[in-house]
Amino acid sequence: MKTINASIITIGDELLIGQTIDTNSAWMAQELNKIGVWVRKRVAVGDVWDDIWNALDEESKDSDIILITGGLGPTADDITKPLLCKYFGGTLVVNEDVLKHVNYLFEKVYRRPGPMLERNLKQAEVPDVCTVLHNARGTAPGMWFDRKSVAGRARVVISLPGIPHEMKGLMVNEVLPRLTKIFEFPVILHRTAFTMGTGESMIAEKIKDFENSLPEHIRLAYLPGYGMVKLRLTAKGDDKENLEKELNEKFSELKELVSAWLVSDEDESLAMVVQKILKEKNKTIGTAESCTGGYIAHLITSNAGSSVGFKGSIISYANDVKERILGVTDKTLRSVGAVSEETVIQMVKGAVEKLQVDFAVATSGIMGPDGGTDEKPVGTVWVAAGNKDKIETIKLAFRFDRARNIEMTAHAALNFLRKFILANT
Amino acid sequence: MKTINASIITIGDELLIGQTIDTNSAWMAQELNKIGVWVRKRVAVGDVWDDIWNALDEESKDSDIILITGGLGPTADDITKPLLCKYFGGTLVVNEDVLKHVNYLFEKVYRRPGPMLERNLKQAEVPDVCTVLHNARGTAPGMWFDRKSVAGRARVVISLPGIPHEMKGLMVNEVLPRLTKIFEFPVILHRTAFTMGTGESMIAEKIKDFENSLPEHIRLAYLPGYGMVKLRLTAKGDDKENLEKELNEKFSELKELVSAWLVSDEDESLAMVVQKILKEKNKTIGTAESCTGGYIAHLITSNAGSSVGFKGSIISYANDVKERILGVTDKTLRSVGAVSEETVIQMVKGAVEKLQVDFAVATSGIMGPDGGTDEKPVGTVWVAAGNKDKIETIKLAFRFDRARNIEMTAHAALNFLRKFILANT
Repeated sequence: MKTINASIITIGDELLIGQTIDTNSAWMAQELNKIGVWVRKRVAVGDVWDDIWNALDEESKDSDIILITGGLGPTADDITKPLLCKYFGGTLVVNEDVLKHVNYLFEKVYRRPGPMLERNLKQAEVPDVCTVLHNARGTAPGMWFDRKSVAGRARVVISLPGIPHEMKGLMVNEVLPRLTKIFEFPVILHRTAFTMGTGESMIAEKIKDFENSLPEHIRLAYLPGYGMVKLRLTAKGDDKENLEKELNEKFSELKELVSAWLVSDEDESLAMVVQKILKEKNKTIGTAESCTGGYIAHLITSNAGSSVGFKGSIISYANDVKERILGVTDKTLRSVGAVSEETVIQMVKGAVEKLQVDFAVATSGIMGPDGGTDEKPVGTVWVAAGNKDKIETIKLAFRFDRARNIEMTAHAALNFLRKFILANT
Repeated sequence: MKTINASIITIGDELLIGQTIDTNSAWMAQELNKIGVWVRKRVAVGDVWDDIWNALDEESKDSDIILITGGLGPTADDITKPLLCKYFGGTLVVNEDVLKHVNYLFEKVYRRPGPMLERNLKQAEVPDVCTVLHNARGTAPGMWFDRKSVAGRARVVISLPGIPHEMKGLMVNEVLPRLTKIFEFPVILHRTAFTMGTGESMIAEKIKDFENSLPEHIRLAYLPGYGMVKLRLTAKGDDKENLEKELNEKFSELKELVSAWLVSDEDESLAMVVQKILKEKNKTIGTAESCTGGYIAHLITSNAGSSVGFKGSIISYANDVKERILGVTDKTLRSVGAVSEETVIQMVKGAVEKLQVDFAVATSGIMGPDGGTDEKPVGTVWVAAGNKDKIETIKLAFRFDRARNIEMTAHAALNFLRKFILANT
């Protein structure tokens, strides 16, 4: 079966001066991948007429679907809509449905006083050669251009606003359902093994023979994250039932090979793995964070439903908070300092007691760039996990920048807590 | 003066299946921008020989500098190095310096037992037609190719590993200093006005005349974030002194126009603005977070030096933690619920007392996707900020997904705290 290719073009100077990180493309690629579209290229260009035009020409050569995001906002530097209008040989006309929707948003939702600005009314203008896609979450509509009469491979060009939640709404409600109607997609299946505790090259060595044994239509990807490596098998074919059977067999082999480091056989976050364990075992947790400054709590509460097992945290950045709320002793802080095994043990004790949880994890370390000493260089971290009867500790040493040290510490601590819970329930 | 153009090519299937969000390109673009390079295009391709080759050909046409990241890891799917070798007509040879460095890392830093894997030793192989750039932070070296003898515009092609902190080290220590030696860059100056409290279109309307008055060589960019808009003026020219004078005048005009919403006249984070205020006024803060789950504390502690003003937080996700540690009354929780003005007021009181801080901010809300009611739909949030004498509150209503609701709430709450501190010291 022929592969359906897509290109994603993102438009906007903000992407090229580096002010905005492009999270849209990753999300879009994931969604397209799920329905069987292979994103072969992503291109970011500025608000520059020729660059946008050339990117459209270029991507039309090899992609069946071109998705464009950005360049549709109400500010002056947006040239995307007039360009698309000219590219597809149309005229800009006011769309009454969009106008009604824009009016509704300004009156009822945003509740802006006074008459609407002309630049907002302009949002209702669309090329007369496109199908308008309703944007329930904002003023800029999506635009769908069919290319029956145009040379080249691309059959569909879709333009979406760059605001992530608007783009996502349009993708889910309009774009993906329409694409599945037009194209005949192959069956695409994924299985992901989530590992922590070793590096990419060690895993690669371990599964070398397995990797070589994979058939052409099953691909393996290494997806490294913070202290973790996800191994994703992707199978492509026509017969779903057989493909699934074949993939599951290969996936079982893979899991067996990496069982020492396996955290989950789903593509999910570490916090979600912990959340499922807590739910299953009907247990509660809390955190006592110094150097991670609330980031572990944030990782946990990013998941809907985290309130089932997570009760709360004490972020004790200052030593007197460690003493007063968590009960770390003045003697410990004076003799061995805040970044010490004794301190994190006392922090876990305090957290279990004060938050009244079954398990707690504590962190204390030096995240940098300043604050390191010869004895305790930047990246030195103590982690403790425990319950009311028992506490275990681990000392970590990272050598990254502050943001990455915080990420690495939080994930390592959460994994340490996960293992403690599994070993002690 | 001729503009120096750059293209950034990122390589790796993980970017195209959407597993990895590309943060490298944004950072690189910022750094290149600072020295006067205009990034005109960013392209992401998979680990596919033809796609990488074609991207190199294509970007060579219009860019003076091509930066490549990714595709250099030790796993099997990396074809970038052989491809570059062929593209530039060289042979892969073992580089003794790199080999020594790889050995050193494995023995002394990673402390891996046993002999090194062949795939790791391969990291020391480089094309004999490139200049090797020392990667102090990892095993994969950077590679610098000069293009004197090749047709097309691109004069330099630079290949860097995709691991962010390795790429950053190479950029700062090797790539940027070398580029400034080879190219004559124009003077590029930026000034950024950081606003919160209104939208892009309202600002655009307010500064319409100002925008039209800008000369050709000073550009304005709107950079929207979570509840904020940054306005960046970029000036380009030859004479630094005059350009600076001209830019400062325009920037003063701009600041005056947006003064009602101005948070800072630096391109910095909101947390950094608060940190500077605390340092200047010698005050301390803490947070009492329910729905933001530690994210405000994380925003604050992401900045080095945050321990000067930030003492800690109580994340009271469960109601009994709100009661026991923060002193929210059972009566309040029963009568008006956790998402209420009364609750956040009591949370601020509790935080000021328990954390012994001058100011505190509290959040309680429904972040979704579940948990909403007719009376309190998803996105309903109460925020309070105060000191021991006075507490102010605000009710917010968002309508996004969970992640964005948390981001929006955290930024709105931190800004509310900022304004309270400024008004009450």
